Amino acid sequence: MAPEILVSEVGPRDGLQSIKNILPTDVKKAWIAAEAAAGVREIEVGSFVPAKLLPQLADTAEIVTFAKTVPGLTVAVLVPNLRGAEAAIAAGADKLTLPLSVSETHSLANLRRTHEQVIDEARAIAELVASQPEGRRPHFEGSLSTVFGCTLEGTIPLAQILRLAEALMTAGCDEVGLSDTTGYADPKAVKDMIRAVRGAVGDASLTGIHLHNTRGLGLANVLAALDMGLTTVDASLGGIGGCPFAPGASGNIVTEDLVFMLQAMGLKTGIDLPRLLEVRKIIAGALPDEPLYGFTPDAGLPLGFVPETQTRSMEAAA
Amino acid sequence: MAPEILVSEVGPRDGLQSIKNILPTDVKKAWIAAEAAAGVREIEVGSFVPAKLLPQLADTAEIVTFAKTVPGLTVAVLVPNLRGAEAAIAAGADKLTLPLSVSETHSLANLRRTHEQVIDEARAIAELVASQPEGRRPHFEGSLSTVFGCTLEGTIPLAQILRLAEALMTAGCDEVGLSDTTGYADPKAVKDMIRAVRGAVGDASLTGIHLHNTRGLGLANVLAALDMGLTTVDASLGGIGGCPFAPGASGNIVTEDLVFMLQAMGLKTGIDLPRLLEVRKIIAGALPDEPLYGFTPDAGLPLGFVPETQTRSMEAAA
Repeated sequence: MAPEILVSEVGPRDGLQSIKNILPTDVKKAWIAAEAAAGVREIEVGSFVPAKLLPQLADTAEIVTFAKTVPGLTVAVLVPNLRGAEAAIAAGADKLTLPLSVSETHSLANLRRTHEQVIDEARAIAELVASQPEGRRPHFEGSLSTVFGCTLEGTIPLAQILRLAEALMTAGCDEVGLSDTTGYADPKAVKDMIRAVRGAVGDASLTGIHLHNTRGLGLANVLAALDMGLTTVDASLGGIGGCPFAPGASGNIVTEDLVFMLQAMGLKTGIDLPRLLEVRKIIAGALPDEPLYGFTPDAGLPLGFVPETQTRSMEAAA
Repeated sequence: MAPEILVSEVGPRDGLQSIKNILPTDVKKAWIAAEAAAGVREIEVGSFVPAKLLPQLADTAEIVTFAKTVPGLTVAVLVPNLRGAEAAIAAGADKLTLPLSVSETHSLANLRRTHEQVIDEARAIAELVASQPEGRRPHFEGSLSTVFGCTLEGTIPLAQILRLAEALMTAGCDEVGLSDTTGYADPKAVKDMIRAVRGAVGDASLTGIHLHNTRGLGLANVLAALDMGLTTVDASLGGIGGCPFAPGASGNIVTEDLVFMLQAMGLKTGIDLPRLLEVRKIIAGALPDEPLYGFTPDAGLPLGFVPETQTRSMEAAA
C-alpha cells in the first residue's frame, strides 16, 4: 500500500555533506538498510559530485549499488550536472535531483554556473534519461533551491522563479521541487509559492518540498505544504548536519518529529515510528561528537499514542 | 491599534515555576518592562500559590503591583483557587486564569481537587469578580489543561472535556482556554478540539490557546489554531523552563520564534521583533546556568525581512 505522505530521507546526502566527520561506508549501508526496514520508502543516499569537493560522499556509487539491493526502496541521488547524472545512471539510481538555485548569485557561488548553463545541463540530463531503456529510466527532478529567499540576494522575484520552473519542465524534467535552502520560508510563503509554481507548471509537476528548520518553522511549513496537497516531504534523521554553532538550529527537518506529526494527524506514512527511533543509535554510535536533534526522540511518544503500524494490524484484525 | 494576534507572554509564570533558580524580583521587573516596551501587550507575571509550593513566584503580588504601572499592559496571573483570586484582585491583576485539568487523576495529583471542587472554586471566583466595582473587574478565564491528553490517563473522553468547558462557563467564567500541558497536541487534534469546544460554548468563549513544544510541533499547532480563528497564543521568552534533560525539548513555545512566524506571515502582533530579541539578554545575564531556546535568535532574521514595526513606519510614511 502506497503511503499517503512520502517521507524522503535526505540525511545520508544533505546531512552528511554538512558535517566534517566522514561516516564509514559500512555504517551508511547499515543506516540505509535499517531505515528502509523501518518503512522509509525513499532515501537520497548521496551526491555525484567530485570527491575532492565532498569527500564525505565519495562512496556514493558504492552506496547506490548497495541501496538498490534493498527491497522496495527508491534510491535517490543529487546530481550537479550531466557528468554526475551519467555516474548516477551507471550506478542504477532511481531518482536524480538537479538543483537550480533561483538566485543567480547563489548559483554562481555554489555551482559556478549561470541559470542558462544549469538549464542546459537539465536538457542534456533529460536527453540522457530519455535514452535509457524502458524500465531503467530514473525519475528526474529539477529542484528550485533558495526559492524562499537567498542569503546573498534576499527575496527572489516571483517572475524569475516561475520562468525557471517552466524552463526546467521545458528542458525535460519530470517535475520540479521547492527547496528552502536558507530556512527563510514561512507557512504563508509556502502556500503562496506552491500556488504560483503549480499555476506555472501544473499541479502534477510539483509534489515535493525540501524544508529547513533554521528558524523553528519547519513543521509548520510542512503543514502548510500538506494543506496545499503536496505529498512528498524531505527530512533528515536526527536532523543530522544541523548548524553546530546554533544548538537546535538544525538545517533539515528531523525525520522522527515529522513522522510523529504525520502519524498523530492520522496520515499514513508506512513507517514504523518506534523502529525508526531505534535507527538513531546507528548514527549516534558512529558519530559520537555529532549532535543529534529532535524533540520526539527525547520526549518519547504520548501515552495512548497508537503507532501507525499497530493501527494497520488492528485494521487487519478487524 | 490592537494586534491581529495577541502574543501572551507566560515566561515569568510558567517558565520560572519550572526552573530551580529563583529570578530576583528586580530582574523580573526589568524583564516585564523590557518586553512590554518591545510591544508585548499581555504578560502572565506570576501565580498566587503558596510560597512554600513555588518559592520562585513568592513575589507575585509585588510583581503585579509593578506590572500595573507599565502602560498598556494586561497583567495576567494564574490562580489555583478562591484564595489566590482574592490576592490577585487585591494586587490589581487584569486577568485571572484558573486551571482545570480535564484529567481528574491529574487534577487530584496537581491541585488535589476533584473536578466538582474546581468548578465550585470557579463559581466562587466568578462571584468575587462580579462583586468588584465596574472598571476593576478582571477578566476571568478557565483553562482546560491536559486537554490533548494526560501523562497519567492518556486520551480524555471528548464528552468529559465538553461537559467541563460548559461547566466553567456556567460557573461564570468569561471564557475558556485550551492548554496542551503535556505536549501531546498535533495540528489535527488542535483543529478538532477547537471545533468541538466552540460548538459547546460558542465561538466568542474560546479565543486563546496554550501550546507546548515538547515534541517539536508547537508552531505547527499554532498554525492550526490560527486557521481555526483563535487570536491569543501563549509563549515563553527563550522557551525558559524547558526540560533540562531533553535539550531543545522546551515546554513552552518560544516567543521569539512565534513572533517571527506571525510577522513573516504578515500578521500584526504589535511587537518590535529585533527589540524583543534583545530582551533575552536580561534573562541570560541573570540565569547564566539556564539554557535559553529558540531558533530565530540563533539564526537571525532573513536578509530582506521587514520587521512589522518598519512596515508600520513605511505605511505611515506612504
